[in-house]
Amino acid sequence: MNRRVVLGALGALPVFSGFLASVAGAQTAAPLASWNEGPAKQAILDFVAATTDRAGPGFVPPEERIATFDQDGTLWVEQPMYPQLVFCLDQVPAVVKARPELARAEPFRTVLSGDRAAMAKFTMKDLIAIAAVTLTGMPVEIFAADVKQWLETARDPRWNRKFTDLTYQPMQEVLQYFRANGYKTYIVTGGGQDFVRVYSERVYGIPPEQVVGSAVGTKFGYGRDGKPFLTKEPKLLLNDDHAGKPEGIHLMIGRRPRAAFGNSVGDREMLEYVKAGEGHRLSMLVLHDDREREYAYGPAQGLPASRVGTFTQALFDEAQQRGWTVISMKKDWKRVFAFEG
Amino acid sequence: MNRRVVLGALGALPVFSGFLASVAGAQTAAPLASWNEGPAKQAILDFVAATTDRAGPGFVPPEERIATFDQDGTLWVEQPMYPQLVFCLDQVPAVVKARPELARAEPFRTVLSGDRAAMAKFTMKDLIAIAAVTLTGMPVEIFAADVKQWLETARDPRWNRKFTDLTYQPMQEVLQYFRANGYKTYIVTGGGQDFVRVYSERVYGIPPEQVVGSAVGTKFGYGRDGKPFLTKEPKLLLNDDHAGKPEGIHLMIGRRPRAAFGNSVGDREMLEYVKAGEGHRLSMLVLHDDREREYAYGPAQGLPASRVGTFTQALFDEAQQRGWTVISMKKDWKRVFAFEG
Repeated sequence: MNRRVVLGALGALPVFSGFLASVAGAQTAAPLASWNEGPAKQAILDFVAATTDRAGPGFVPPEERIATFDQDGTLWVEQPMYPQLVFCLDQVPAVVKARPELARAEPFRTVLSGDRAAMAKFTMKDLIAIAAVTLTGMPVEIFAADVKQWLETARDPRWNRKFTDLTYQPMQEVLQYFRANGYKTYIVTGGGQDFVRVYSERVYGIPPEQVVGSAVGTKFGYGRDGKPFLTKEPKLLLNDDHAGKPEGIHLMIGRRPRAAFGNSVGDREMLEYVKAGEGHRLSMLVLHDDREREYAYGPAQGLPASRVGTFTQALFDEAQQRGWTVISMKKDWKRVFAFEG
Repeated sequence: MNRRVVLGALGALPVFSGFLASVAGAQTAAPLASWNEGPAKQAILDFVAATTDRAGPGFVPPEERIATFDQDGTLWVEQPMYPQLVFCLDQVPAVVKARPELARAEPFRTVLSGDRAAMAKFTMKDLIAIAAVTLTGMPVEIFAADVKQWLETARDPRWNRKFTDLTYQPMQEVLQYFRANGYKTYIVTGGGQDFVRVYSERVYGIPPEQVVGSAVGTKFGYGRDGKPFLTKEPKLLLNDDHAGKPEGIHLMIGRRPRAAFGNSVGDREMLEYVKAGEGHRLSMLVLHDDREREYAYGPAQGLPASRVGTFTQALFDEAQQRGWTVISMKKDWKRVFAFEG
């Protein structure tokens, strides 16, 4: 007797129906309500059906059901600038207050000037210098508190909403649908692991221990009160982008996922790695082709080029060749955000 | 209504009792059956009761219930030599066959000679050289297959049993008891993460993604068939011992555990870190004081000194001062191994 049948039978007893509704969750509602009918929605439904059908050839035991999701551009908006980079820039004044000598040094002087055009020209070296002073050097709890506070007050420049309101409703439904079918859902992001872990549980229902991201080392030490604490060190342990994604998955999960979702060239190796496993595997890419409801960028399919979340034509072609499914935001999503109503 | 009450009510309906027994698991049986009554057993029972009592001041929400367990000497036998080190030594002939130039070089020549007395004198440099050639340089799947095969054939020198038969039954019951009460159980070991992940699910009910251990980096590449694969690299990412344990916990879990179990100076920082968190916390140490049923080593409490699993008097004293509970294998455990019957 499978779990769904048992729950269905129990649900017929009124005294338990409330309890069971909370257990069964999204299993009873129509899944993927914000998706239009089409090949993308069908690919997800077919994959989940095949891997959870105990009698079928594609059955995957529950303990092996792992699905990984890129964050920036896959689960939430990454344009015109990664939210974490906005956080770093917003932290610079507080850092400079504590270390006034930085006020006269680049790239901090430019950040303090507020000159967005000059900031847009920052080199990778500039960005690393900003990341080093805003993401490392503090106890892990202080960092988490700073991120939490920033998330409450910061607003994105287009919708004037909290960044955590800018998650894609159709992808939230994919997360729920996978979990309702026994999958553990993981975020695998080029963004900072410690950053995303602050809100992942509240925003995506993904606990901190299921967030894999770029990570610096920490250093164990003792405070003046004798209590041990961990300090974030300027030492990169994992650059969780491109090849770092499958490497990070091996380090942090230790199993090859059955399904993976991404949206840019940084997700390519993860999707290859997932799809190369035996049995049923699902690799999908979100294509941002909806300038009206969100953004349109590629340069695949003639869309405007973008430094943030680059989706090349070569990636699009590889998707066709390897049997990955490309999600058209414009065609496949009934709505983009929950706040659309 | 809490889960236990609901399950109890449902269990009264005969049609569901079998299904519910599988859900409730160890909750219905008397917990910790292989433990003698005493302060150690009581500390575990009290901690779990306090942190799962929704009406009490020590309640911990289910998502924050994390318990971490050292492996060597805490969950299974580590004497006279860590099982993983036996694995490494046993792999040397196969490595030398593939790389014959190593046969004349130390420390490999000594390993091939079978001279146990000489091997006992190996320096850390020798051991690192052996680890480098037996734990790195191969695809992750090949390594896992080698470990799996070795576990089937290797036998420990005292009981002549598979190493995976030498887990401590009382600690298996602690793992089950914590899980039955909503805790996620993790292994946090100085041993190799990739090594322990091969058998953790089968032997402890702990899935690979809940094993934190010493870890080398991997390198993503493509085979001649175009398929991507990961190779274990001789580059240490995490030395998961001493301060590396809380650092590894932050990297891989991202939450401070509520309970931790260890048995040696290598676990000290983890136990300090856990106990320093707010609210109810449990830190426990297994003291090997049972030469007849297992081994006796310290040098705490006048037990013989040991290079493997050192438990100093300073650690014993710190346990008293900080409110950690020391488990006496001799007094607290009714039986040590499941095979005792």
